[in-house]
Amino acid sequence: MTATDPRSTTLHPLDLATQLERVDEHMLRGRSSEAYMNMVGPFGGLVNATLVRAVLEDPRRQGTPVALTVNFCAPIAEGSFEIRPALLRAGKITQHWSLLYTQGEAVVASATLVCAVRRPTFGFAPARPPVVPPASELPSYRSPVPLRWLDRFDFRFAGEALALESEPLAEPRSPRSVLWVQHAPPRALDFLSLAALSDVFFLRIFQVRGTAVPAGTVTLTSYFHAGEGELSAYGAPYLLGVSDARVFHDSFHDQTCELWAPDGRLLVSGTQLAWYRA
Amino acid sequence: MTATDPRSTTLHPLDLATQLERVDEHMLRGRSSEAYMNMVGPFGGLVNATLVRAVLEDPRRQGTPVALTVNFCAPIAEGSFEIRPALLRAGKITQHWSLLYTQGEAVVASATLVCAVRRPTFGFAPARPPVVPPASELPSYRSPVPLRWLDRFDFRFAGEALALESEPLAEPRSPRSVLWVQHAPPRALDFLSLAALSDVFFLRIFQVRGTAVPAGTVTLTSYFHAGEGELSAYGAPYLLGVSDARVFHDSFHDQTCELWAPDGRLLVSGTQLAWYRA
Repeated sequence: MTATDPRSTTLHPLDLATQLERVDEHMLRGRSSEAYMNMVGPFGGLVNATLVRAVLEDPRRQGTPVALTVNFCAPIAEGSFEIRPALLRAGKITQHWSLLYTQGEAVVASATLVCAVRRPTFGFAPARPPVVPPASELPSYRSPVPLRWLDRFDFRFAGEALALESEPLAEPRSPRSVLWVQHAPPRALDFLSLAALSDVFFLRIFQVRGTAVPAGTVTLTSYFHAGEGELSAYGAPYLLGVSDARVFHDSFHDQTCELWAPDGRLLVSGTQLAWYRA
Repeated sequence: MTATDPRSTTLHPLDLATQLERVDEHMLRGRSSEAYMNMVGPFGGLVNATLVRAVLEDPRRQGTPVALTVNFCAPIAEGSFEIRPALLRAGKITQHWSLLYTQGEAVVASATLVCAVRRPTFGFAPARPPVVPPASELPSYRSPVPLRWLDRFDFRFAGEALALESEPLAEPRSPRSVLWVQHAPPRALDFLSLAALSDVFFLRIFQVRGTAVPAGTVTLTSYFHAGEGELSAYGAPYLLGVSDARVFHDSFHDQTCELWAPDGRLLVSGTQLAWYRA
């Protein structure tokens, strides 16, 4: 991308970083992006969003994403990668996709994605978001660690923000965090946007121990609870994120996430399993 | 299976129903089981368990299951089916498997399974099970619908049991259920057992509406929070199950599950997305 590329003035970093070039009917190719770099390889939410985009741009796609599972199989190296989407089965309501994310011969991530045609019917929302001050009344988080992907989001913690010390805490802290989050620069809500936001929550092992330890997401599942028109009607709001965990045992822990719209609607619920050494 | 088959006196119905015959290096074959029949096709937990067994019996397998996602792509017909496990990537700690469950040319289910070598390290269990009377003090559930798979489990609800009326309730009920559950006949805990138990919770749309409506699980993710030795040490206990949901919207709802050991340890946490028409 050069300064004279006309796209640079109009495309959001997320749209640039998830760009895919079609190699043939079965394969797309992308390149790593400096803008979303994590400690090792890309921010997981970028991988999520890139896989979603591979299906959204597939001419066979019908309906919109309702469920995504991404398995992070190995570190992703800088440079190019290939995505192979396969449509396993399609019915009147759902489409089942399977995707491989490779670098050369090596599988570095795999995914399954379900698209569906939603129909208005009985609705019920028994769960409610936590009551917290609006984003405008809370300070932006300043990360103690300089990672590029953290510059791509504005985090505003309600309550205690993540603090990373050099040594683990004597007593573990609650794994629960509540925070407003938005892309930086702001970006309209759609499935790419939600796929990226589904993985913005720091691993709960950092939160609980109060320090950075070797750790990584092994598998991440996200459910999308709104349609395309519903999302676009929100514009580019801060979403209220809730992240929690139930159990840390023998080097694996679970982690849950919720992303709530400002009007109290749940847009995403998710869960992940993470590995840690601590 | 004939009455003189020596296995019939020793093998649990779950072990019989998940038996697989190796066709070649890449494929196993199984057959539908009357004992776990649901309204249409097999009980989903049997599919879960069969996919887990395909990997457990694979000579390449290392470690034990930590995460399983099963996508239910289409109704499964009676008769035989094939399972093709592929080892996508193996490292020192994790193995990433992908599985296709087919009938002839048609994919009816797909799955990803992560196995891992667990290492003792920092542990923390911030979540606790609900406090309810022991299973021995609660009545066994009598299902109002005669489905074979329901005979394969003993459900003991703490609080209101699922009631199915002919018409939906005027006001939706809470989606939360708490119940003790065990295989019938009882069966020792292992990964097969847990994979089956991960899908014993009635779809929350039935619970909320108080009636049976057209509905089905689209995708189901289960995390296993214990190792082989830890599970076998429990013998064949009742597990405490908690099932809940956050949102029912435009024909899809989420659903969560937890399975707790009698000593208060979380053994399984899971989530699913279900389709409904109601």
